[in-house]
Amino acid sequence: MKKNHVKELWREGKASVGTWVVLGSPITAEIIANMEYEWIVVDTEHGAIDIGTTQSIIQAILYTGAVPMVRVPWNDPALIKRALDAGAYGLVIPMVNSREEAIQAVQATRYPPLGIRSFGGPRTRLYGGADYFEHANEEIALMVQIEHVDAVNSADEILSVEGIDGFFIGPSDLAISMGLKPGLDQTDPRHVAAVSKVLEIGKRHGVQGGIQVGSAEAVNERIAQGFKFIALSSDEGFLRSAALSALGNVAKDRKAP
Amino acid sequence: MKKNHVKELWREGKASVGTWVVLGSPITAEIIANMEYEWIVVDTEHGAIDIGTTQSIIQAILYTGAVPMVRVPWNDPALIKRALDAGAYGLVIPMVNSREEAIQAVQATRYPPLGIRSFGGPRTRLYGGADYFEHANEEIALMVQIEHVDAVNSADEILSVEGIDGFFIGPSDLAISMGLKPGLDQTDPRHVAAVSKVLEIGKRHGVQGGIQVGSAEAVNERIAQGFKFIALSSDEGFLRSAALSALGNVAKDRKAP
Amino acid sequence: MKKNHVKELWREGKASVGTWVVLGSPITAEIIANMEYEWIVVDTEHGAIDIGTTQSIIQAILYTGAVPMVRVPWNDPALIKRALDAGAYGLVIPMVNSREEAIQAVQATRYPPLGIRSFGGPRTRLYGGADYFEHANEEIALMVQIEHVDAVNSADEILSVEGIDGFFIGPSDLAISMGLKPGLDQTDPRHVAAVSKVLEIGKRHGVQGGIQVGSAEAVNERIAQGFKFIALSSDEGFLRSAALSALGNVAKDRKAP
Amino acid sequence: MKKNHVKELWREGKASVGTWVVLGSPITAEIIANMEYEWIVVDTEHGAIDIGTTQSIIQAILYTGAVPMVRVPWNDPALIKRALDAGAYGLVIPMVNSREEAIQAVQATRYPPLGIRSFGGPRTRLYGGADYFEHANEEIALMVQIEHVDAVNSADEILSVEGIDGFFIGPSDLAISMGLKPGLDQTDPRHVAAVSKVLEIGKRHGVQGGIQVGSAEAVNERIAQGFKFIALSSDEGFLRSAALSALGNVAKDRKAP
Amino acid sequence: MKKNHVKELWREGKASVGTWVVLGSPITAEIIANMEYEWIVVDTEHGAIDIGTTQSIIQAILYTGAVPMVRVPWNDPALIKRALDAGAYGLVIPMVNSREEAIQAVQATRYPPLGIRSFGGPRTRLYGGADYFEHANEEIALMVQIEHVDAVNSADEILSVEGIDGFFIGPSDLAISMGLKPGLDQTDPRHVAAVSKVLEIGKRHGVQGGIQVGSAEAVNERIAQGFKFIALSSDEGFLRSAALSALGNVAKDRKAP
Amino acid sequence: MKKNHVKELWREGKASVGTWVVLGSPITAEIIANMEYEWIVVDTEHGAIDIGTTQSIIQAILYTGAVPMVRVPWNDPALIKRALDAGAYGLVIPMVNSREEAIQAVQATRYPPLGIRSFGGPRTRLYGGADYFEHANEEIALMVQIEHVDAVNSADEILSVEGIDGFFIGPSDLAISMGLKPGLDQTDPRHVAAVSKVLEIGKRHGVQGGIQVGSAEAVNERIAQGFKFIALSSDEGFLRSAALSALGNVAKDRKAP
Repeated sequence: MKKNHVKELWREGKASVGTWVVLGSPITAEIIANMEYEWIVVDTEHGAIDIGTTQSIIQAILYTGAVPMVRVPWNDPALIKRALDAGAYGLVIPMVNSREEAIQAVQATRYPPLGIRSFGGPRTRLYGGADYFEHANEEIALMVQIEHVDAVNSADEILSVEGIDGFFIGPSDLAISMGLKPGLDQTDPRHVAAVSKVLEIGKRHGVQGGIQVGSAEAVNERIAQGFKFIALSSDEGFLRSAALSALGNVAKDRKAP
Repeated sequence: MKKNHVKELWREGKASVGTWVVLGSPITAEIIANMEYEWIVVDTEHGAIDIGTTQSIIQAILYTGAVPMVRVPWNDPALIKRALDAGAYGLVIPMVNSREEAIQAVQATRYPPLGIRSFGGPRTRLYGGADYFEHANEEIALMVQIEHVDAVNSADEILSVEGIDGFFIGPSDLAISMGLKPGLDQTDPRHVAAVSKVLEIGKRHGVQGGIQVGSAEAVNERIAQGFKFIALSSDEGFLRSAALSALGNVAKDRKAP
Repeated sequence: MKKNHVKELWREGKASVGTWVVLGSPITAEIIANMEYEWIVVDTEHGAIDIGTTQSIIQAILYTGAVPMVRVPWNDPALIKRALDAGAYGLVIPMVNSREEAIQAVQATRYPPLGIRSFGGPRTRLYGGADYFEHANEEIALMVQIEHVDAVNSADEILSVEGIDGFFIGPSDLAISMGLKPGLDQTDPRHVAAVSKVLEIGKRHGVQGGIQVGSAEAVNERIAQGFKFIALSSDEGFLRSAALSALGNVAKDRKAP
Repeated sequence: MKKNHVKELWREGKASVGTWVVLGSPITAEIIANMEYEWIVVDTEHGAIDIGTTQSIIQAILYTGAVPMVRVPWNDPALIKRALDAGAYGLVIPMVNSREEAIQAVQATRYPPLGIRSFGGPRTRLYGGADYFEHANEEIALMVQIEHVDAVNSADEILSVEGIDGFFIGPSDLAISMGLKPGLDQTDPRHVAAVSKVLEIGKRHGVQGGIQVGSAEAVNERIAQGFKFIALSSDEGFLRSAALSALGNVAKDRKAP
Repeated sequence: MKKNHVKELWREGKASVGTWVVLGSPITAEIIANMEYEWIVVDTEHGAIDIGTTQSIIQAILYTGAVPMVRVPWNDPALIKRALDAGAYGLVIPMVNSREEAIQAVQATRYPPLGIRSFGGPRTRLYGGADYFEHANEEIALMVQIEHVDAVNSADEILSVEGIDGFFIGPSDLAISMGLKPGLDQTDPRHVAAVSKVLEIGKRHGVQGGIQVGSAEAVNERIAQGFKFIALSSDEGFLRSAALSALGNVAKDRKAP
Repeated sequence: MKKNHVKELWREGKASVGTWVVLGSPITAEIIANMEYEWIVVDTEHGAIDIGTTQSIIQAILYTGAVPMVRVPWNDPALIKRALDAGAYGLVIPMVNSREEAIQAVQATRYPPLGIRSFGGPRTRLYGGADYFEHANEEIALMVQIEHVDAVNSADEILSVEGIDGFFIGPSDLAISMGLKPGLDQTDPRHVAAVSKVLEIGKRHGVQGGIQVGSAEAVNERIAQGFKFIALSSDEGFLRSAALSALGNVAKDRKAP
């Protein structure tokens, strides 16, 4: 089976940097995947992206170096199974708040005997290789989102579940669960402490830490802090910021001479 | 009929600034159209965008202030008719190199007696208004692309054709037709002179000048030069530049501490 | 945040009239939304409409006065989250039969601290406005369907749940749960009594009453009865009835003279 | 090859009644095709309907009794070939104004030796039958649109071209080519005379007459006049008229009691 | 209501042979359905096929003799309801491992009083007939997948649930739940015994046996064994095997003379 | 620019073997492209495949070794430009019957100074490389179809046009233009002679010969004859033959024991 490059980086102790695609366009994904982003997560939680389109996006980036991943809308075995069969090499599962939910995510993601994933999905063998079944449990990266104060409190129970490779912090959702305002740059000490706590627990269990950031500077800080899976903006974010910034420098008075 | 805001700006002697969407995504168009871009051209010449998707993109931006326009793949009456019926308030016609071709573009774009556009296309009346037929010849902006040295030489014959509202210079195509390299910033004196010449001829015939540029600075220069329809980058360009630039500031050494 | 016009009407004590779109076509929705219908519900329960298409339909009607809403296929937090992120200003949740299910619908629909809706979905901010997060809990209309005799019996427990704005009666499903035949015009006293009972309970809790009807006359009767959210037919119903009726008047003997 | 029922009716001297689908929805087509409409024309001239969707619409109505036809956007051999390969049993060709254009339409529609249609398109053999190639020239109905005053003047030259089965009058386009207002009910004597003239010429050449009408009454009148292919409204027209008419009977004062 | 031909065959004591479509293409389904396959299951479990595409596939085969069926991704009432409303005449439900899960599948599939399926979905009445509601509980074939050793152990409890028409064995999943390798031809005595056991239990309860096979020979063996619903390969399997086999006979040395 | 492997094979004097995809499915293309087929032609002439889908199919096979090519529906510069911008590394142009038509194909395919292809289409640079413009004229393979007896007669004038890399014989169309029956295996001496003649003329002009065949045996014969670009069946052909052949071995008597 073709190796999961993100897991290779992790084995070398290196952080990986990727981004999200939320626009549902195979082309935006392809453009970004032709840069040095190490992975692309197709965000089917907040993007209106169906499974057919998810598969098209994954197909569009397979010739690049970026590892294709999917955030499913919910910790639901049907959604997880379909994302994997469409070719995802990694999963991000929203709102995992308890050990039970973590176990359910593992069950859905892993083939027996670790879990209950159903055999099938011939596309996976095209790209992954004929021995996909034998190695998928090992190569597929499973990340659970810690994005609620309840999950922080249960982090030890969650991250000690066998079969989980990483966690991913959604700063905004974590913040609003604490009564703070949403946003990527959270400076409230409670938020900062929660993130640190989860990171430490993850390290103890050999589970990689992931987080969403909004700038290159924040990427570098998070790497320094020990995060290994850092999401820098999204196709939507890149497009919006550049289009806005370009226009900002255009003269407002357009009366021609 | 709902007014064409770009034509209103022109009547006030003002330049308008817009951009292209080439990715075929109603969402990228919607994001940009929610900024202060005054028009969006759906580029069906170089974007793999079918007529169904073109219509979806136009629908997605109708609630914004940006005027929906289409660049058709070719000066072909079937393509022009369909773009208009899908709701385009403006057209950009590639590679118009002669008076005959300019007349053909007008014929396809205008209802009788000016042209041969077929009546139909109920969507136009939804957004445009019940009196769409009565005013479409006047409100629809028709721009022909001057993007070949032959067209420069025939600019006077082309731009004097009744029913043409503007011209649009494709700097790269014009350059390669002259044996120069493609690119938006052309400094070769022959290219510069050709652009100036066409602009002057356009002014003489009351025809608005349009051009593609790559930066806000270039927008401002072109406004100063007298251009009235300036295309600043594209959804693809914005996305690519921002994604690339963000990554440029990320540390290359990602060995975690 | 752009106001929800249906809620404004409710605050003025006025009924709103809308319809369903079940065909999955952004154009049928756009045509209807250009009339005086005050809202459009995209029916993803009985229509084969995916989330990508749901978003396209919503985009297609944003420039009209009709408020975009979605009936999700099931009371499922993933489906609710995605419909909201696609831009729905109102939700109709099928088969809510108990207080627990009503609470679950509220949880999925509302941001913390009222619920668990995840922050994200940049499209909502384009149309809704930059302060979407701050006001969404208030502007989004949440309606639960009372369409089973069990729900009628639990109406008090259901409609007293905080965060529910209205109920919607599906006459056919309610009928078949009672052993009656499906159909919009139910005259069986048990059905009539059940509807009245729910309406009264709704009024007591300040919860708006909604119902499906098949004719303008029935709309007027339901308004008189106190309903505030009345669904008049659907795109499919309109198309079918008109095509059938037109053909009914065509001569059967088509032997030409 | 499965017979073309419209041609069978013609052989019996009977008029056929059908309608247009312009919305690009396989479901609207299917709904109508389940009534007694004898044919459905997919209107790719004024509808934003790509060839993939055209094929889906045709597939969706094959189990009904309605004959699938296509109006192509233009008298272009590529468009004609693709519509036929997608399964059209009849074609309507816009704006045929001269004998040369009529010959070109025949060339594109018919296999050698009558024309130049390319062999291929395996779908046609699924539904049409294994002997599709042998009978297609005979079963496919080719109708040219007479919708310009020039075409009326050349009607004899046009309709005498071998391989043309019928003509179709577009009342609005014919009207605007004469300086009249668009609309289906044309009473100007010049328009009436033009239609009669073309009908007579068609009869002389054994070519069936087709026309667009807006009401069942007009269908009956046109049958009486000798037309054999009468288009009654469209999916868009049916939907719009019914939705508008339903709302017209709803009370404007919706203040609840 | 149009009869379910598979159920008719069962009533005559005959086995039916069909196949799966997993590629999400209405055309591959149509090609196969034009052969003598008696049913087609649209596999939305392992194929990346959304509900809109599911409906298109069903529409594309309605004119053929093949009965349209759907394998849903999961035993989930929302997925079941939507597949039925899209026109499925039969359902295959994955991973039914207990009596509770079997009851849940029946509940979701059947209208009251047998279950809780919601009335609606006008497409079903087009093809199924106006009396669809009255007969759907009887005509729709419901098959539960026995594909885990737990399900084998609970087969009696599962297959005795009223409203279940058949079971379907997924040989690969059953194998991996037993610690065997996946594959269609399972010869391990434990696997063979499990299949026989379920078949016997099915017979006792009047429930039809279904199974996936990879070759015509295996079809014949399974018929002889008493299976009544045999899935022979899939569109993907057919395509792959033929393309591979054709290439196998091409000379490797392609140096031209 | 990434090299065109088919051209590399030609430079080594080797024949290449590929196939067509006509079903419009990125997955069928991907399955085949994962075998040893050296190229895939997306057939937009006889397949109902729009430009958006064409691009998706090309994206889906870029990670494989198969070179992506497109048969356009017609020798039309707009269609050629769009196929190239979607990423085609080779083009097959139908029905080129004269030197003028051959020149027109070259003009549309090649950038200046050889032709008039417009610069643009950012996707080409992603996969092709940043220097796409500099090398595209050289790497893109342009093949014209010789499929009419007129083209055979003009083969010398056609194949001597600079910028044409190969010809492709459509055996069926050539046959029907000669009054023969369609089919891939043509044994009529006139057909055999015509094919040989064109092959000889091609060799004289250094133009590669291509042809459609139906079996591996025919591939080997055509290689021996000197053909360098041999199309072995299609996704549709593979699927159909395997599904039919599998069913042929299933017992017709399915009465269960």
